[in-house]
Amino acid sequence: MPIGRNRILTLLTDFGLQDSYVGVMKGMIAQINPQLTVIDLTHQIPPQDVAGARFALMSAYPYFPAETVHVAVVDPGVGSRRRAIALAVGTEVAQPTGFLVGPDNGLFSGVLQQQPVLAAIELTNTDYWRTAEPSSTFHGRDIFAPVAAHLASGVPLSELGTAIATNTLTQLAIPVCSYKQDLNQPATTITGSIQAIDHFGNLITNIPGTDVLGKEWLAIVNGIVLCGKQTYSDRQSGEPVTLVGSHGWVEIAVNQGNAQATLKLTIGNSVQVLIKE
Amino acid sequence: MPIGRNRILTLLTDFGLQDSYVGVMKGMIAQINPQLTVIDLTHQIPPQDVAGARFALMSAYPYFPAETVHVAVVDPGVGSRRRAIALAVGTEVAQPTGFLVGPDNGLFSGVLQQQPVLAAIELTNTDYWRTAEPSSTFHGRDIFAPVAAHLASGVPLSELGTAIATNTLTQLAIPVCSYKQDLNQPATTITGSIQAIDHFGNLITNIPGTDVLGKEWLAIVNGIVLCGKQTYSDRQSGEPVTLVGSHGWVEIAVNQGNAQATLKLTIGNSVQVLIKE
Amino acid sequence: MPIGRNRILTLLTDFGLQDSYVGVMKGMIAQINPQLTVIDLTHQIPPQDVAGARFALMSAYPYFPAETVHVAVVDPGVGSRRRAIALAVGTEVAQPTGFLVGPDNGLFSGVLQQQPVLAAIELTNTDYWRTAEPSSTFHGRDIFAPVAAHLASGVPLSELGTAIATNTLTQLAIPVCSYKQDLNQPATTITGSIQAIDHFGNLITNIPGTDVLGKEWLAIVNGIVLCGKQTYSDRQSGEPVTLVGSHGWVEIAVNQGNAQATLKLTIGNSVQVLIKE
Repeated sequence: MPIGRNRILTLLTDFGLQDSYVGVMKGMIAQINPQLTVIDLTHQIPPQDVAGARFALMSAYPYFPAETVHVAVVDPGVGSRRRAIALAVGTEVAQPTGFLVGPDNGLFSGVLQQQPVLAAIELTNTDYWRTAEPSSTFHGRDIFAPVAAHLASGVPLSELGTAIATNTLTQLAIPVCSYKQDLNQPATTITGSIQAIDHFGNLITNIPGTDVLGKEWLAIVNGIVLCGKQTYSDRQSGEPVTLVGSHGWVEIAVNQGNAQATLKLTIGNSVQVLIKE
Repeated sequence: MPIGRNRILTLLTDFGLQDSYVGVMKGMIAQINPQLTVIDLTHQIPPQDVAGARFALMSAYPYFPAETVHVAVVDPGVGSRRRAIALAVGTEVAQPTGFLVGPDNGLFSGVLQQQPVLAAIELTNTDYWRTAEPSSTFHGRDIFAPVAAHLASGVPLSELGTAIATNTLTQLAIPVCSYKQDLNQPATTITGSIQAIDHFGNLITNIPGTDVLGKEWLAIVNGIVLCGKQTYSDRQSGEPVTLVGSHGWVEIAVNQGNAQATLKLTIGNSVQVLIKE
Repeated sequence: MPIGRNRILTLLTDFGLQDSYVGVMKGMIAQINPQLTVIDLTHQIPPQDVAGARFALMSAYPYFPAETVHVAVVDPGVGSRRRAIALAVGTEVAQPTGFLVGPDNGLFSGVLQQQPVLAAIELTNTDYWRTAEPSSTFHGRDIFAPVAAHLASGVPLSELGTAIATNTLTQLAIPVCSYKQDLNQPATTITGSIQAIDHFGNLITNIPGTDVLGKEWLAIVNGIVLCGKQTYSDRQSGEPVTLVGSHGWVEIAVNQGNAQATLKLTIGNSVQVLIKE
């Protein structure tokens, strides 16, 4: 980090926007360094939905500047013995792609599938907390926001606590898709599931877009067969379509409509993709 | 623009706040220029509601500093052949009142009723995009946010692509109010409709406030006759009232209540105003 | 305030996020000083809920830097004769803990229970307004945001209008809890009520946490007896728990659940706390 240059800081929580919890975290950050730029990823993760937080953070991560400090607080275990952690990730120690600050409950495990861990710290140095005796219910205010503000202001990661082994980090068990080669014809069947549903009702599967790019392919969902397309408007308005979404996963959408409402599907439902080789 | 001074950048979308789409746009902006100030107009335009986006942008536009860059992404045609555009608007080439960046689908046509176009560009210079091969579903991330960040940082508009004729810009067909002079008495009847409904349930008509200011007037809606007033509290709590709202349009409200819920009216419903000359 | 250093500015309203009202306030602030940092406390106070605004502001206030300018606009009396005010609060005239800007309707009375008033001004100097003839319905745009932007940029409070007597400030009548000593056993009964419910469904009472800290205590709500605990996870998932919440009040929660939905309680419902001496 160039001396005197602040890092960007992002926030992702399940706090919603009706209370002042998010504002309070930003107040704590401003107390430490009023010059920091704070970007909201989302605060509308469903309460305690660690898997949803994992997906949202993983999806946003690649689009931020190097060394951005990402604070994620979806924390059903707050006040219990779960660890509070900060990680540097990427491939170059001199310039991590980013830092992750939050509870060790698996919400970083999506980013960690894309990015190696350079250093992992348990947050034990109370000098960087709001108080050495934090609330048992709001570590976002008392630990994570202050620690992240110091990290974004240039405090070295190693200052924040005790090094921990990377292989002890909590991983979230997430459904993965499976592949089956058809012996009678040149085709592959991938069985996956819906891992996320966005604001538009688009159904985002766990089947990587790289599996289908440049190929002829079909998706089968709830008995409906959809030809792989390039974009929403390759179908009539109101018609379902399958394509590789902006997240990089196979997605099922309805052009100018809501696939979740139209197809009555939800997270975890099965999706099959057939690829003609 | 003074050299070395950044322009303000605003965002208006139908992306909602539950996903990280808005955060991702801000990440792209921060990659290009972390010093930019980004202001959210709203991200809760109903999905694909170009007319709603037009109203929200038109209503907010006059309150921003000169040269603000407004990015609006309500984009049912993303991935189709609709053009991606950037406009400079105002009356002075040396200092536009603002810039508009987004799809050419009519969402700027409200601002363009108030502001002449100084220059119109189709965004064809991929040097200012995230990638020369953008996603077919998320031009906010791949084209509009990066282009706007460059524009807000001082890149000349003309650099962003090819000049296009102003008269080819898509206009949104929006209901307008009509005027009728009464021959038997000194009065004018204006027939309009509800063009927007805000968070408070206030019903915003398409009848300009300038038509009634300083005059004695009535509004008739759903058979109810309301005398034109100055402010909400000119009526008892819970009573309907008509006045010129802060947007500058004739508005129907309920003092300390919700006119939409009370009067059971919706966008497009007819409203009449009688002006005594 | 160090010369040349801007104050932080916060916004709290009932405007919601679907319209561009909040964006418009930020546009007005940027016109006056584009360098100001603006932090949203919340814009989702229920419409006209002055008591909810009072609680949210009081809860957030302690976590902001000294001299932060807090703008709060929940304003059922906009356009009536209610006063528009700005206050400096704290104990040191040379460095207030903060400034409060908004309507004089009691929404500051929570902060004022914690912080003495150093100076109170009625906003009468129209030089610092958007216009000397403000809209009768949107003082957030026309008075409060501009005044606050000037104040955050270093304009002295006394410049903004006419001094008013502190004892004329509107107080909100809020239920307080009552205490009863039990004569037959060493115990105290505190009778309070639910003053707020947060996004997680946590029920926040008006019984101060300092009354129970370090003691053995019970809460009784709707006939259910709960032992005072340290944190959510001191109970099984789905079980109700009582503890001192991060706001500093006795709170009733459900571990990894929603106490409001589980216990079917609402604001104003009675809660009793029994303390063993």
